[in-house]
Amino acid sequence: MKIYLSGEIHSNWRQDIMDGAKTAGLAVEFFAPVTDHAASDDCGVAIMGAEDDKFWHDNKGAKLNAIRTRKGIEDADIVVVRFGEKYKQWNAAFDAGYAAALGKSLIVLHGADHQHALKEVDAAALAVVEQPAQVVEILTYVLNGTLPK
Amino acid sequence: MKIYLSGEIHSNWRQDIMDGAKTAGLAVEFFAPVTDHAASDDCGVAIMGAEDDKFWHDNKGAKLNAIRTRKGIEDADIVVVRFGEKYKQWNAAFDAGYAAALGKSLIVLHGADHQHALKEVDAAALAVVEQPAQVVEILTYVLNGTLPK
Amino acid sequence: MKIYLSGEIHSNWRQDIMDGAKTAGLAVEFFAPVTDHAASDDCGVAIMGAEDDKFWHDNKGAKLNAIRTRKGIEDADIVVVRFGEKYKQWNAAFDAGYAAALGKSLIVLHGADHQHALKEVDAAALAVVEQPAQVVEILTYVLNGTLPK
Amino acid sequence: MKIYLSGEIHSNWRQDIMDGAKTAGLAVEFFAPVTDHAASDDCGVAIMGAEDDKFWHDNKGAKLNAIRTRKGIEDADIVVVRFGEKYKQWNAAFDAGYAAALGKSLIVLHGADHQHALKEVDAAALAVVEQPAQVVEILTYVLNGTLPK
Amino acid sequence: MKIYLSGEIHSNWRQDIMDGAKTAGLAVEFFAPVTDHAASDDCGVAIMGAEDDKFWHDNKGAKLNAIRTRKGIEDADIVVVRFGEKYKQWNAAFDAGYAAALGKSLIVLHGADHQHALKEVDAAALAVVEQPAQVVEILTYVLNGTLPK
Amino acid sequence: MKIYLSGEIHSNWRQDIMDGAKTAGLAVEFFAPVTDHAASDDCGVAIMGAEDDKFWHDNKGAKLNAIRTRKGIEDADIVVVRFGEKYKQWNAAFDAGYAAALGKSLIVLHGADHQHALKEVDAAALAVVEQPAQVVEILTYVLNGTLPK
Amino acid sequence: MKIYLSGEIHSNWRQDIMDGAKTAGLAVEFFAPVTDHAASDDCGVAIMGAEDDKFWHDNKGAKLNAIRTRKGIEDADIVVVRFGEKYKQWNAAFDAGYAAALGKSLIVLHGADHQHALKEVDAAALAVVEQPAQVVEILTYVLNGTLPK
Amino acid sequence: MKIYLSGEIHSNWRQDIMDGAKTAGLAVEFFAPVTDHAASDDCGVAIMGAEDDKFWHDNKGAKLNAIRTRKGIEDADIVVVRFGEKYKQWNAAFDAGYAAALGKSLIVLHGADHQHALKEVDAAALAVVEQPAQVVEILTYVLNGTLPK
Repeated sequence: MKIYLSGEIHSNWRQDIMDGAKTAGLAVEFFAPVTDHAASDDCGVAIMGAEDDKFWHDNKGAKLNAIRTRKGIEDADIVVVRFGEKYKQWNAAFDAGYAAALGKSLIVLHGADHQHALKEVDAAALAVVEQPAQVVEILTYVLNGTLPK
Repeated sequence: MKIYLSGEIHSNWRQDIMDGAKTAGLAVEFFAPVTDHAASDDCGVAIMGAEDDKFWHDNKGAKLNAIRTRKGIEDADIVVVRFGEKYKQWNAAFDAGYAAALGKSLIVLHGADHQHALKEVDAAALAVVEQPAQVVEILTYVLNGTLPK
Repeated sequence: MKIYLSGEIHSNWRQDIMDGAKTAGLAVEFFAPVTDHAASDDCGVAIMGAEDDKFWHDNKGAKLNAIRTRKGIEDADIVVVRFGEKYKQWNAAFDAGYAAALGKSLIVLHGADHQHALKEVDAAALAVVEQPAQVVEILTYVLNGTLPK
Repeated sequence: MKIYLSGEIHSNWRQDIMDGAKTAGLAVEFFAPVTDHAASDDCGVAIMGAEDDKFWHDNKGAKLNAIRTRKGIEDADIVVVRFGEKYKQWNAAFDAGYAAALGKSLIVLHGADHQHALKEVDAAALAVVEQPAQVVEILTYVLNGTLPK
Repeated sequence: MKIYLSGEIHSNWRQDIMDGAKTAGLAVEFFAPVTDHAASDDCGVAIMGAEDDKFWHDNKGAKLNAIRTRKGIEDADIVVVRFGEKYKQWNAAFDAGYAAALGKSLIVLHGADHQHALKEVDAAALAVVEQPAQVVEILTYVLNGTLPK
Repeated sequence: MKIYLSGEIHSNWRQDIMDGAKTAGLAVEFFAPVTDHAASDDCGVAIMGAEDDKFWHDNKGAKLNAIRTRKGIEDADIVVVRFGEKYKQWNAAFDAGYAAALGKSLIVLHGADHQHALKEVDAAALAVVEQPAQVVEILTYVLNGTLPK
Repeated sequence: MKIYLSGEIHSNWRQDIMDGAKTAGLAVEFFAPVTDHAASDDCGVAIMGAEDDKFWHDNKGAKLNAIRTRKGIEDADIVVVRFGEKYKQWNAAFDAGYAAALGKSLIVLHGADHQHALKEVDAAALAVVEQPAQVVEILTYVLNGTLPK
Repeated sequence: MKIYLSGEIHSNWRQDIMDGAKTAGLAVEFFAPVTDHAASDDCGVAIMGAEDDKFWHDNKGAKLNAIRTRKGIEDADIVVVRFGEKYKQWNAAFDAGYAAALGKSLIVLHGADHQHALKEVDAAALAVVEQPAQVVEILTYVLNGTLPK
């Protein structure tokens, strides 16, 4: 089963899920965006030349990142989207909408304080959880049919 | 041509665009989510019964709103998404992702201060503007081939 | 907006919804299967010749009905599926699955006693209600943005 | 070839088919829902927290199960749906409708007493049989071109 | 409802169906290939210039006819394919396969003597009949729910 | 029937076809890109602000034009692509590829001197002609089944 | 590359192509319908029980064969359809239409005497040849870029 | 990741990219059209027999090439299209349009002198570069998240 891990890049939630899945011995493959913030911001100009205007600087980079992101979502069976505490995270919500339109199984991961603001995203999800460990439990159940003790 | 106007519900931008299109005599139809904030929040429980848990209160409402929203986006030729000054607006970004995955022509409308945070959304758009009047100009050009003087 | 009314044919729920929508002045079109039980059972052999074997008698009829049913579901924006008190109603659940796979907005209508048995169908729905009047309220909200007083 | 085995979870029909396919040396992979009834009912609350309301208890679980079920059906070349003697089995009919809408080859497995009630489901199938051994014979024929002696 | 009438062009079956539908007052639109045999054979060279080689003469014509045929089938809700007594009629079977792959409701019309040779085509159909009047009866039932007396 | 007229904007071929279709009384609707060369080049910066870099000047304009072009091609039953004597006309070939991938009926219009260079485009077409009058003859045949005298 | 070999089952053309591809060392996989005529005719009743009526005898068999045939065509990159000297071969033309509607690359194999009758089928093909050896040459060219000496 | 390399066949740009990817140790597979110009022009007549008319000579060849080209584009995650200095290269632009309509990630490779003429193609791309080495850098970033030093 292929899992795309979208969203927050400033905490270890991806690693927590991947470690948990490994410990559980799950037959899964994980995909993710580039999580090196600086590389992700500057990839466009680093490869294709500098821009004076910040809009085009960002545009070039965001398009390069889209090559990886779209592929990751389109190939995935499950898209997990994590909303963290900081930043606008509109790209996370954008990925969730993209995944929903493609009919992907969507799992949303966020703290209770974001509940109301994320109600439309949560309503498109098959599961809404607060902890990475719960994502591992879901994957374990979906793949092996076993529940946490 | 069918236009879906997604996003911010606390300013008059939809009316500005509809008025402008009317003045310009454009052959367009506009669609939008329910923009009555209270009705939009409470529609689920008002029709289907109260919930103790805020999550399910919101979930019921968000799903009802999705009936209208998905229909509006799926029928549209152009999806305009407006990001305002306030709130998280994750549903706007979700709609943008949903529209992008369906291959809709996307126009994003936001102020300069949101430029960096919206770079992934902007990168999926065919036009990024700051003013509703520019959306009217785009529609005028796309439909009639004429530019503002 | 196009609404397909699938399921139970032994009560007046379709007429209740259509009357309610008319009273509310909603811009909707309703579609439904043939609800004349005898005609629906015998249409195949009446037109294409008798069969000795009940299986083929039913098979011929069910295929003719499928011409109308598939068209109704595929054209619909919203599919309402009603589960009544009697019979197996597997065709209702089949229609719900068919509609879900096509990404239609699904509204399920059933009494509280069927709740557990219908949990998979309900989980695919955007709304689950008990009364036809609630379907009218949902349509009123989705189309006009107004809630019941 | 990938086969999804949907429906009844209270008899050994899945094992019978899998054993038969193994004995016949068929190049097939089988997929199925979680068939542990208790786990299937409670998976949602076990992982995502308890609910007071039975509807949401079931809703959370049914959505988790949908992650596995949808993937199984969407990946399958053939969907076999078994209707047993007991229960409403609306999820089986739902899966059949879902599979039919995706254009999957559908094989329906049920006793003669359900024939009339399942006529719409049977009409969407490429084969209707009563015994698991017949499913093995069909798979043997479809894959190897050989008939039972 | 849109009906495409494919196949035999040497008898009056299309007119019989259209007359019958008119008499029955059915809300249907009929589409068909060009049924002027000579025009259909020579359209390519008449418009685009003569060819020495019969293969290219036919190729040019068949491609022009495909513009009309594909549009007719793709727009149709129901595709009726008639196999007559004479000729190979491979284009009729081709249209049936094309319609089947698009998920169109297929009605096949042929005499009893062609039954075995058409078994694969019939197996993809929702109705198999011998007389144009039966097609009218089917359309009447599908649209109005009424059976012949 | 909906016809999109793509390609060359420096001769009167579109008008010739539209006039011919009108004279012939054909039930067709024509769509086309903006054919005002200056407006087409500058639309982006005229509405969304000037750019120092020619690449972004063109990029903004080309994306606005894409809103109209994609809509025109996606809605069309037939896409006619005209290659004239001058310029690279890569956008014409791009439109032809876009139309081909969507399964549209493609008619290519060009002089004999471009035959070899356009062989891949011609191979994807259902008709290749040299004169606008031949396009009118094709439309007349496809719609009415009549050939030029 | 996956190749489906549809059509005539009374000559060795499939073996000729498979042998030729093996000799040429091509990286291809071949798929085909069941070519044992008796098994293909009787598979339905052999597994699912006898029928008095020849129509249902054939219907049961044709549907079982469709499980294999549809899978073969849908998985294929190239569909080769062979029309032999005898029989109506409507299933071959049906498969060609089915493949064409799915956008498969179609190669048609037939003798010169069938040229006019197969003009619509040929017009949907990317290659029309008379000999199995030419199919091997095409596959060799498509895969390796080398031409026969 | 699968990469299709479309366009110019008279320079070593494909080899440069493939060598660069190998040096970088990237997990990619490359596909391309037949780049032997003579074979590509004559493949049709070499295998299927000579034609007097150059149009059909080219038509037969272009259709054979389409078997390989369409497969290559449809399987690809990324389509790179190179426009060289010479020739019309309409097939390159056709491939770009074909890829864009299928939603493939498009990278366009051309010199600065073609910038204005390629503005519509560039506007559909996620990256526009001048050197093959930049394509390798993009692939390295997309796959491994690392930027050139």
